[in-house]
Order: sequence, then C-alpha cells, then structure tokens
Amino acid sequence: MTHGTQPGPAASGTPTAPAAPGRLSPAEARALFRAGLVTPTAGYSDGYAQANLLIVPKAQAFDVLLFAQRNPKACPVLGVLDAGETSSELLAGGDIRTDVPRYTVYEDGVLVDSPTDLGAVWREDLVTFILGCSFSFEAALREGDVPVAHIEQGVNVPMFRTNRACAPAGSMSGPLVVSMRPIPASQVADAVRITSRYPAVHGAPVHVGDPEALGIEDLSRPDFGDPVQIAAGTVPVFWACGVTPQAAVMQSKPALAIGHAPGHMLITDLKNSALQLP
Amino acid sequence: MTHGTQPGPAASGTPTAPAAPGRLSPAEARALFRAGLVTPTAGYSDGYAQANLLIVPKAQAFDVLLFAQRNPKACPVLGVLDAGETSSELLAGGDIRTDVPRYTVYEDGVLVDSPTDLGAVWREDLVTFILGCSFSFEAALREGDVPVAHIEQGVNVPMFRTNRACAPAGSMSGPLVVSMRPIPASQVADAVRITSRYPAVHGAPVHVGDPEALGIEDLSRPDFGDPVQIAAGTVPVFWACGVTPQAAVMQSKPALAIGHAPGHMLITDLKNSALQLP
Repeated sequence: MTHGTQPGPAASGTPTAPAAPGRLSPAEARALFRAGLVTPTAGYSDGYAQANLLIVPKAQAFDVLLFAQRNPKACPVLGVLDAGETSSELLAGGDIRTDVPRYTVYEDGVLVDSPTDLGAVWREDLVTFILGCSFSFEAALREGDVPVAHIEQGVNVPMFRTNRACAPAGSMSGPLVVSMRPIPASQVADAVRITSRYPAVHGAPVHVGDPEALGIEDLSRPDFGDPVQIAAGTVPVFWACGVTPQAAVMQSKPALAIGHAPGHMLITDLKNSALQLP
Repeated sequence: MTHGTQPGPAASGTPTAPAAPGRLSPAEARALFRAGLVTPTAGYSDGYAQANLLIVPKAQAFDVLLFAQRNPKACPVLGVLDAGETSSELLAGGDIRTDVPRYTVYEDGVLVDSPTDLGAVWREDLVTFILGCSFSFEAALREGDVPVAHIEQGVNVPMFRTNRACAPAGSMSGPLVVSMRPIPASQVADAVRITSRYPAVHGAPVHVGDPEALGIEDLSRPDFGDPVQIAAGTVPVFWACGVTPQAAVMQSKPALAIGHAPGHMLITDLKNSALQLP
C-alpha cells in the first residue's frame, strides 16, 4: 500500500488477516487496513457499524447531501466530514484516506481505479459522506433468528437495479438499487419489524415479493454481488441498498467521486445498538 | 395579506377562523391562510404533520442541511425545496410563500419583520427547509394516554436555551434549544417509548429530569413559549426543539433567513402515522 507519493512498505511488512476479526476493536481493524491489509470486512469488529463511503468535491456536496436526504432509505447519512477533513468521531484517531481496505475512484461516472489508499487522489476540497450499511441490520436479523441466506451460503448479497428512479437532487439522479434476501414466509413480518428499527442503516424493506414490479426479471442474475439459492417457502424481500449512491454517480457523472470497493467497508466506532429505534 | 406587489384583498375578504379546524384537509387549511387568515395552527388538520420552516439563500443551503444532518433530533428534515421552488408534494398545490399564516424574517441574525406572506422578500435563490415539529409526537402521546400539560393548560410549550452547543456545520452554530413537558413519573417510560418511534419529529427525549445539568435554572421562566404548571409527581422531560435552527440563525447571522412565526406552522400533506417507526 502506498500513501501519497511515499513508497509503500515491503511485502513482508503487510499484516496478515487476524484469526478472530470479530474481536478487533474498530480502531484495531482500521489500523490493519491502514498498514496494508486488503480484505472484505464482513465479520470484522462484531457489534460495530460498517459504512458505505462516498467522497465528492465540495462543489457537488450539496447535491449529494440533498440526494441522501430525499432518498434516506438508500442513502442514510451517518456522518459528513467537512472539506479536507480526514477524520471524525466516527473513526477516532483514524484517517479516511487510508482506513478503508480498498476504494473505488470514478471520473465522469466511469470507474478508473481501485486503490488501497487515496494518497494519489486526495484534494483539500473533498467532502466525505459516511452512509449506513445493511451489515448492521443483518446482525439484528440473525439475533432475531431470522435466517440471512447469503451469509449462510458464504456469498455477497445479491443486488439489483430497479425500474424505480430515486428522487433527484440537482445534478444527482439514478435508479434505486435494492438488495434481496429470501425470508421464510412465516418470518417476513419479523424481518420487517426488526429492520424497521434501524432507519440509519436502510430501515424497513421497500418491497416484499413480486420482483417483476421492480423490473427484476431474474432473481438468479443480480446486477451486483452474487446469486443466492432461494429455498422453497421463502419470499424475496427487497431493501434499499447502499450501492444506490454509486449508481447515481455512474449516471450523474461528476468529474470525480470516490467510494469503497464492494464489501470493503469503513468500520466505524458507532455501535449497531446505538442505531436501534425505539 | 399582500402577495408580491399586488394590493391585498379588502378586510371583508379575509376569511374567519373555521368552527372545526381539525377537520380541514391540509390543502383547505393552507388555502385559508393563503387567503389571509392569520392564526396559530394548533388544532388544525388532525392527523397531519405540521412543520417548522427555515428558508435561506442557496449560498448557505449546504451549511444548513449539514447542520440539520449533524443535529437530527433538533432539526429533522422532512423535505427541501430547490432554489426558487415554491411547492412540493409536502404541500401539493400550495405555495410556500403564502401558505404559512405568519413568517419571521431575519437579516444578519436580527428579526426585522413578521409578514403574513413572502411576496416582498422572495428571491429565486431561496432554498426552503421543511422540518418536523413536536405537534406530531404530542398527538401520539395523547393517543397513548400520556398527559401533555401545556395543551391541557391551553398555553404554548415552554422552551429553553441549554448550555449544550449543537454540532456546528460551516457557518452555522448555536445552542441546543429544548422543549419541556412535565410527565408523571409512572409514564416517563411510555413517553420515551412513544416518542422514540417518531425520529422525524424530534424523536426520543434528550434529557429526563435534572434541568440544572442543561443549564436551566428556573423551569418557570422559559426563554420561549409560556410557563406551564408542573404538577407534583411529574418529572421534567426535555426534547430537542424546532426553535434550535432559528437560534442558530440568530447566532450565525446569515444575511437573510426566513422562518415561521412561533406556533404558526406549515401544515403538510404528510400523515403523522407515516412518520411512525417501526
């Protein structure tokens, strides 16, 4: 991993994945990623909220914040770093330029790079949006004995572009992207009840059953993530997905935008339990 | 009431207060205010959310939206109208310049006028923020048989500046302002549970008991609103208050800011029930 124009450490200096990532504090996990570990973050720092990332120049920041306000289920804002700020109480002692295992860099809406730090692209006018992620409500579902199929199957959650447009905001527009989890029919009500209590991490489903109505023709062919086996007796349940802001970037084509690589999240100091209502 | 530079209707054309304001639809209520009725809106359009208003030039809009994001209990955003927009689905068929019974106009943080329409001050660069109001959760408290003292006593809720600073955002900073409701000790838990379900209208209390810790020396001398009689066996419970953004305007001194006059709210087409989680 390189930081700015400094040469990176020798390969022998790169940390290896820990044996018990769930027991790491968020600060410990971020330090590993800062030191060069590159890995998906599922299973790290049990009990703490992982987050989606979207970084744009200040000139686009109002449009992004308004887009988030108008599409709160897809883009729940946990925190915003002012232009040029690289840390906050959500990542105490950390650095947003280094503490995510892998980033995505979009120029004019096109993915141009997936660096492991932002030394080469950071600018003082960049505003960082930290957005809630479904990992938090998945922990609550499992605690509530609602099975989460893609976790049991060891794959990434399947995600689909829908035929629904998000509410636009200035230069930002795009489709609603949803994640799908097949839920046993007897537990759909539980899944709604439990996730409703977490509005800061996508909240209640946007759609239950009937994928065709969302313009989804084939549940086995997701637009992002992996297909998941759908057991008999389950109903496909759709939640607004944190990929939505990156889809809006692709459609809206700001000169520069930075996100996290899929599954490579920011691990925050926020406890999932603090996000629960009521 | 005048609209723009047009002469207003004759006094005989001003509508009188309706006999059953709770039964008016939001559109009917707004039409009365647009036609010249000036009255506090408590008791109007039962079941619908009334809202606080804050209007600022586009140049300040990002700071205001970020201030709201960082202080969501005090400034819960229900909707934002783009620069120059005067209506939205929150006030279908309405006009934000005329549909609030009375406004406040601040220049450099100082209240300079309290007009009944914005014809004289409207500009195409003004961005309107529509913010949740405690009227919505008070309806839920009463439905839950939790007494709301100031309503029973027929006065405005008492509000206090606290010694807590809001999280600042760019040019916007100010103290947290709270409203206080004395709740019977046996029902404090109910009050917390019920209002927690309404994060879009201030949500759970920020403080229960111990007013001194908030820097409140005398509960009988509120900074805004009216004193309320505090019955024996009740505990003072404090919620973040929608006056907070106007207090921030007073401290932050933007060149121009517009609010609603106290108690003279925007009646929206949003049902209170739609704001309830889970």
